[in-house]
Amino acid sequence: MRMSLLFAPTLKEDPQEAEIVSHRLMLRAGFIRQLSAGVYTFLPLGWRTIEKIIRIVREEMDRAGGQEIFMPAMQPAELWKETGRWDLYGPELIRFQDRRGRDFCLGPTHEEVITDLARREIRSYRQLPLLLYQIQTKFRDEIRPRFGVMRAREFLMKDLYSFDRDMDGLQVSYQKMYEAYCRVFSRCGLEYIAVPAESGVIGGDVSHEFLIIAESGEERVFVCSRCGGATTSEVARCPRCGIPMEEKRGIEVGHIFQLGTKYSEPMKAYFVDRDGKEKPLIMGCYGIGIGRTMAAAIEANHDERGICWPFSLAPYEVVVIPVNIKKERHREEAWSVYEELSQAGFEVILDDREESAGYKFTEADLIGFPIHIIIGEKIERSGMLEIKLRRSNERIEVRRAEVREFLERIRKELVK
Amino acid sequence: MRMSLLFAPTLKEDPQEAEIVSHRLMLRAGFIRQLSAGVYTFLPLGWRTIEKIIRIVREEMDRAGGQEIFMPAMQPAELWKETGRWDLYGPELIRFQDRRGRDFCLGPTHEEVITDLARREIRSYRQLPLLLYQIQTKFRDEIRPRFGVMRAREFLMKDLYSFDRDMDGLQVSYQKMYEAYCRVFSRCGLEYIAVPAESGVIGGDVSHEFLIIAESGEERVFVCSRCGGATTSEVARCPRCGIPMEEKRGIEVGHIFQLGTKYSEPMKAYFVDRDGKEKPLIMGCYGIGIGRTMAAAIEANHDERGICWPFSLAPYEVVVIPVNIKKERHREEAWSVYEELSQAGFEVILDDREESAGYKFTEADLIGFPIHIIIGEKIERSGMLEIKLRRSNERIEVRRAEVREFLERIRKELVK
Repeated sequence: MRMSLLFAPTLKEDPQEAEIVSHRLMLRAGFIRQLSAGVYTFLPLGWRTIEKIIRIVREEMDRAGGQEIFMPAMQPAELWKETGRWDLYGPELIRFQDRRGRDFCLGPTHEEVITDLARREIRSYRQLPLLLYQIQTKFRDEIRPRFGVMRAREFLMKDLYSFDRDMDGLQVSYQKMYEAYCRVFSRCGLEYIAVPAESGVIGGDVSHEFLIIAESGEERVFVCSRCGGATTSEVARCPRCGIPMEEKRGIEVGHIFQLGTKYSEPMKAYFVDRDGKEKPLIMGCYGIGIGRTMAAAIEANHDERGICWPFSLAPYEVVVIPVNIKKERHREEAWSVYEELSQAGFEVILDDREESAGYKFTEADLIGFPIHIIIGEKIERSGMLEIKLRRSNERIEVRRAEVREFLERIRKELVK
Repeated sequence: MRMSLLFAPTLKEDPQEAEIVSHRLMLRAGFIRQLSAGVYTFLPLGWRTIEKIIRIVREEMDRAGGQEIFMPAMQPAELWKETGRWDLYGPELIRFQDRRGRDFCLGPTHEEVITDLARREIRSYRQLPLLLYQIQTKFRDEIRPRFGVMRAREFLMKDLYSFDRDMDGLQVSYQKMYEAYCRVFSRCGLEYIAVPAESGVIGGDVSHEFLIIAESGEERVFVCSRCGGATTSEVARCPRCGIPMEEKRGIEVGHIFQLGTKYSEPMKAYFVDRDGKEKPLIMGCYGIGIGRTMAAAIEANHDERGICWPFSLAPYEVVVIPVNIKKERHREEAWSVYEELSQAGFEVILDDREESAGYKFTEADLIGFPIHIIIGEKIERSGMLEIKLRRSNERIEVRRAEVREFLERIRKELVK
């Protein structure tokens, strides 16, 4: 992609309304724009990062045996009345009537819909275990939407639901998901931690939150550096190892729940077991906030100049910057590097705009491309380019002919 | 994927509520389930086909210079009042109030939202032309939702919006999209036709509908076999060539519009042109119904036994059916073919269920996998497999060792 064509309206000034750094940087770098309080449009750069998170999530859900489906956003009130959540949910649930006066809500979550599907289609233990998931827009009318896409009223979520014959089966499914979540966040290049958690309005007995470690995180968590154990309750020492716990802060990006029969009992989602008896399906549910993961990634990866994307989440991996676009040599070498790297499978952007080098450097830092290739005077004098690594700010001089090989080596290091 | 694990609840009986063949087959083959009138869940097989359509659409929009974004479903009433459509749209527009009593609707289309974005972010002719698109859920409270996902209340659509300096620019963008649409439907393996059309509630002067040719189509269209010209008005002879027009029936799957200033004028979306003057943006909009394309593909490609998917839209390309799963030789050869083809990049499903061969054949025909590989007695006697092509019902005997090469040849023929 050429920067002159890219729709990425950056802002010079810090936007007034943004209270946290990820919100500020997503606005400034041209990743999102607000349509209404807590309601955002993702612009091309923002959407590319979202798509990267979605791809990783999808691959790991599939690898764990999940099957992707797509459920509706508009949900009939009847289902929510069966579980009692029509009354329980309160004003966070967006409600409306269709043209015939029937009550609907916009799904903040899909337990009712999936349990309805399960009770119609799952008859026998032979169909179990079953893991179904979707990546879909959810709605939650927050009393105080804030922090950009971190706490929005309309947001993207991956939600997976597991169905098992018994509690042993649920343990297996839960463990699979636990491990899949670890792989997701680690492939996103994020430092994360899983802690036992309260289950809140979703219900069930056992649950874990997945937090991205970031100083700005809303949640306090205590971690044992020896056994890796973590808790949200204040403790001085690890109950297992006896050593002092370390306090960290984190941002919740995922939550997994053992639901048991919380939804299958009231909705009568039964199956016939091997012994011929009817039993309620044993369920689990597992969510990842897609936009939230993007925001948390920025909270954990930025500096005073802008975003420092993990390689796997960057909207583009490499930006090629000719220092003076009016000089034929700069321009030609930039094009040739751009084309060579694109063909080698890198996601490259060429900053072909007639702007000053300083302006381009500043924007490249703000947007946070992991690798900057700067083509300036040195190309004329000695055939050298400068490669800058955004996060470490390390600068390396590389011969034009060796650029591709050099970047392939870096890529291998960055994507493990 | 193994058939024993796949969540594809097929139905033996024709569902009562389905009036047209695509609806009937999507229910019977386990592609969709209804949640409420005109509101559907896509099950794993259905979602795979949707994803394939989305991938083709995305690639062609990108190739034409489109940049993908993602706009909200919930839209503030204020924007719709600016264009007058808040009143114009009537009960098809789903409306609700948020917890603070502000009016919102669920977008049936996104002209207001994109024009609002454009007026904030497009300042100069230098930013033009600009093509932005999304693939997103739309809502339209149809008075009579019917025909399954063909006319649903909640549905997936690709909508692209073009912004140009002048009418000449719009012609270029419009032509690009016209050609991109031709590529989309032809890559989907569908016979289509583009006809000049009425513009309806979206507005604007020039528009074309894209129809998939199918006997069950709702729209009549008259086509000239010589010049390819087409019209929805009844005519006896081609005005250009003078030869008799052929009558066909089609299903609308795409619609492209030259909007001009219909939205930019009332919403004051201006830019500064090269001559220093403020001018309204010249817009076009371009939609493809994703679920509708899937349904139309079935209307155009089925027989009395089920769906005959075009290769590029099939949820899986190949099904491997061991005739008798209890025979070790059948089972082992089936697994080995399954693994070999999967590794060669085919999307293969292995029917490893303990069902009769007849049952498996019937389901494979119903779901419509393009290629069936049947492993039975012949493998023991002579090392041969049977390959059945779903659409033509042609059966070919192939040596086990030559299966992969044979399928690679077929794939080349089917995906041009």
